[in-house]
Amino acid sequence: MLNAPLLIKDRSMSDEKRIYKPRPVTGFPEWLPEERLVEQKWFDSIRRVFESYGYCSIETPSVEELEVISAKGEVDKEIYVIERLHADENSKKEARLALHFDQTVPLARYVAQHFNDLVFPFKRYQIQRVWRGERPQMGRMREFYQCDIDVINVDNLPISFDAEVAAVCYEAIESLNIGRVQLRISNRKILIGLLDELDVSEKIQILRILDKIEKIGSEETEKLLNETEAAQWSKDLIKLAGIKAKSSKELLDKINDLSIGNLFLNNPTGLEELASILNQLSHLPEDAVIADLSIVRGLDYYTGTVYETQLLDVPQFTGSVCSGGRYDDLASGYINKHLPGVGISIGFSRLFDVMRQTHADKLGIGPKSPADIMMILPSEEERYYAAATARRLRERGYKVELYHAARKIPDQIKYASKKGIPYVWLPFSDGHQVKNMNTGDQTPANPEDWTK
Amino acid sequence: MLNAPLLIKDRSMSDEKRIYKPRPVTGFPEWLPEERLVEQKWFDSIRRVFESYGYCSIETPSVEELEVISAKGEVDKEIYVIERLHADENSKKEARLALHFDQTVPLARYVAQHFNDLVFPFKRYQIQRVWRGERPQMGRMREFYQCDIDVINVDNLPISFDAEVAAVCYEAIESLNIGRVQLRISNRKILIGLLDELDVSEKIQILRILDKIEKIGSEETEKLLNETEAAQWSKDLIKLAGIKAKSSKELLDKINDLSIGNLFLNNPTGLEELASILNQLSHLPEDAVIADLSIVRGLDYYTGTVYETQLLDVPQFTGSVCSGGRYDDLASGYINKHLPGVGISIGFSRLFDVMRQTHADKLGIGPKSPADIMMILPSEEERYYAAATARRLRERGYKVELYHAARKIPDQIKYASKKGIPYVWLPFSDGHQVKNMNTGDQTPANPEDWTK
Repeated sequence: MLNAPLLIKDRSMSDEKRIYKPRPVTGFPEWLPEERLVEQKWFDSIRRVFESYGYCSIETPSVEELEVISAKGEVDKEIYVIERLHADENSKKEARLALHFDQTVPLARYVAQHFNDLVFPFKRYQIQRVWRGERPQMGRMREFYQCDIDVINVDNLPISFDAEVAAVCYEAIESLNIGRVQLRISNRKILIGLLDELDVSEKIQILRILDKIEKIGSEETEKLLNETEAAQWSKDLIKLAGIKAKSSKELLDKINDLSIGNLFLNNPTGLEELASILNQLSHLPEDAVIADLSIVRGLDYYTGTVYETQLLDVPQFTGSVCSGGRYDDLASGYINKHLPGVGISIGFSRLFDVMRQTHADKLGIGPKSPADIMMILPSEEERYYAAATARRLRERGYKVELYHAARKIPDQIKYASKKGIPYVWLPFSDGHQVKNMNTGDQTPANPEDWTK
Repeated sequence: MLNAPLLIKDRSMSDEKRIYKPRPVTGFPEWLPEERLVEQKWFDSIRRVFESYGYCSIETPSVEELEVISAKGEVDKEIYVIERLHADENSKKEARLALHFDQTVPLARYVAQHFNDLVFPFKRYQIQRVWRGERPQMGRMREFYQCDIDVINVDNLPISFDAEVAAVCYEAIESLNIGRVQLRISNRKILIGLLDELDVSEKIQILRILDKIEKIGSEETEKLLNETEAAQWSKDLIKLAGIKAKSSKELLDKINDLSIGNLFLNNPTGLEELASILNQLSHLPEDAVIADLSIVRGLDYYTGTVYETQLLDVPQFTGSVCSGGRYDDLASGYINKHLPGVGISIGFSRLFDVMRQTHADKLGIGPKSPADIMMILPSEEERYYAAATARRLRERGYKVELYHAARKIPDQIKYASKKGIPYVWLPFSDGHQVKNMNTGDQTPANPEDWTK
C-alpha cells in the first residue's frame, strides 16, 4: 500500500549495520505470548481469590535503601544494588539503592512508613517481581514473581488469621487447576515450648536440625541431635517431628501417645493454636490440610504457625510451592510499635515455569492472541464496514482483531488458525457469517445476537 | 485469645532495638491502598481496551544486557546498571545488566530473539515498569509504569495499523474517564519530503527546531530557521507547521492554500498517509483526533506517523500523556530482517500521579479495601456459621471480609466504615440482615438472592 521508501537518509545507524545477536539472560526468564496468556490467567485467578477475602493490593518500589534491607541483618542474601551508569559526584551522595529480594522487608518498611494512613488489621496482597543474585545453577531464577498475602495488626493478631491466610493460599493455588494441593501446617511454639520444658537453650540450632529431617532422614537427624544439649531426647523429638494429623483430634491423640506428651500440659499454646487452625479449616476437602510437625521453615523470624504447600499431582515440582508463617514483630527495625503478622508467599514463577515445561497442554498453552474473534477484511472498500462490525462486537464484550489486508479469505482464515483465534467473522454486506474454528462450521450471524 | 507471649527468646535482633526510620526514596513513588485500588482499575481498563483489539501481552525481564541497550547508541540515557552487592570474580565475568529505560528496545530485542516463534503482524502490548536515573527534580520519576502497544511486521506494515494504534490509545485513555482526550497526529514524511523537494539536507536539525515551536513561539523559531539552509523558506515552514485539521479534506485544503502547496505533488506520501489515518478515525467524536503538523517528536527513530495526546480538561497535566509513532526498522541492530513497526506509549505513572493529586474525588479514591461486604462476627461460637456465610457469598462473586473478633457490633461496623466497605452483613441465626453503608438502611437478606 502506502509504504513509501524511507525518506530519512541521514540517520546515523542505518549505514553501520552492526548486529548484536541477543541471547537469553541467565536467570531472567521471559515467556512467549502463548505462555504469557496463561500466566496472566493465573495472576487474575490468584488476585481474584486474594481480593475475595478483602485483601487489598499494594505495590512497593523495586528498590529499597540498602540501609532498610540490611536493617534486619540480612545482607548475606544475594542482593543486587543499582547504580547509574554515568554516576557523578551528586549521585554518589545519594542513598545506595538495592532491588528487593522479597516482599516481606518492603511490607515491614511500608507499614512503618505509612502507619498513620493504614487501617489495622492491615490485610494486603502483593504480586511483584523480586530479585536474587544467585549463582546461575539448577534453573534458579534471579528475577521472579512472588504472590504474597499478609495480615499485620497492632499489638495482637487473632489466630483466626493464621487459618484465613492458609485458606486463601489453598484456594488460590487450587484455582489454578493443577491437581490436588496439600497445605502442611505446624507451629514453632510446639517444639520451642517443649525445649523450654526440657531446659534446652540451643533452640534455633535444634529447629534447624529438625528442619532437614525430610531431606536427610531420621537416622542422620538423630546423629546430629545427639551432638546437642537435647541428646537424651533425640528419639522423642524425632517421633514428635514425625507426627502428621488431619484433624485437631488426631493431632492431640498422637501427642498424648508420646512418652513426652504430658510435657505439653504446662505449655499448650502451640498445640492449641494448631488445633484451632485445623478446626477452622475443616470445611476444606480431605487431604487439603494436614498438621505436619516436621515443618519448621528456615527463616528466623517465624514465631508461631508455619506453612508449606505440596502439589500432590505434580512430582516434577519439588519443594514447597507456597510457604510462610507467623512473625511476632517484623517492623520493629523501622518503628517503635509491636506489629505481629502472619503471611504466605507463593513462589509464582518457579511454579509456572515447571508447569509450563511439564504440563503445557493441561495449562491450555496454545493460542497466541487474546482475541475471541477475527474479523475478515473482504476488500479495501469494505474496510469501514468491517471495522464498524468489529467495534459493535467489542461493545458487546468481545475481543476482536480486524485482519489487516484484503487478502484471499482462506489466507486470512489461516492467520486466525495460526494465532489460535476461535471464531472468524465474515462481514458480508448481504449477511454476516461466523466460522467456528474448532468445528469448522460456518453459520449466519448477527452481532446483536452475540453477548458475552 | 491465643496470642501467647513470644517463646523464642534467643533471636538476635530483639535485644538490639536499632530503629532505622525509613523515608520515601526520591523518584520511586508508591501509593496507599486506596490509591492503588484506583491504579488497578486503570490498569484493568487499559488492558481491556488493548486486548479488545487483539493485542497480546508480553513482559520482558527488567534488565537487558548493556550491549543490547547500547546497540542503538542510546547510552546517553540515564541508565541504571545492576550489580551484586557481594560481587566475586565469577560475577565479574558475566555480562553487565542494565534496567530497561523504555519498552521499545526490549521489544526489538524480543522480536529478534523469538522471531521464529512469533506470528506476524505481531501485535503486542506491554505494561511494565521502566527506570531512568534522572536528576530528582520537578517530580520526575525514576521508576514508573508505561503502557505500550506496538505492531511489528516483516518487510511491510499497512498504514491501517497507524490508525488502529491511534484508536486503541484514544479508547484506552478515554476509558479512564478523566475528560476529553485529543490525539494529535502528524507524519514526518510531510516535512522531510518537502525538505527533499527544497534540496535541504539538514533535515533532522530543522525537524528539531520545528519540534519546539509550541514552546518557543513562531518568532524564535523563525530566527533559528534563518540560521539554516532552509532560511529562505522559514516563513513557509512555520505556516506549514501551524496547520491543524480535523478531517482529511480540511488538511488537504489547507495544504493547497500554502504558497508551497504544489511542492507536495511530487512527494505526496506523508500527506496521503495522514489523510488515510484521519479517514479511518472518522468514527471518533469531534475533537478526538486532529492533524497537527507541529508534532515532530524528539526521538530519531520515527520515520512516518507521529502522535501526541492532550487531556483537554486537565490543565494540570502538561505535555503529552501518550506518544509514539512509526519506525521503519527498529530491530535492525539485533537481526538481519526488515521489521517496520508502529506504536504508542502511555506515560502511566505520571498521569496517575497528577490525577491523584488534583482529582482524587473524581477518581474515586476513598475505599481502602476491595471488599464489597463485611461479614459481622456475632460471637466466637458463631464463627463457623459466619465464615460459611462469607464463603457462600464469595461463591456468588462477592468479595467478603470476615470481621476478625467478636466485638460489639457498632465497633465492627465502624471498621467497615473506615475501610469504605459498602455493605455490612449480619449473619444472625434467626435471619440475616444487610446494612447499606451509604444509606444506612438495614434490611433482611438471603445469600441466595445475591448474585453479582
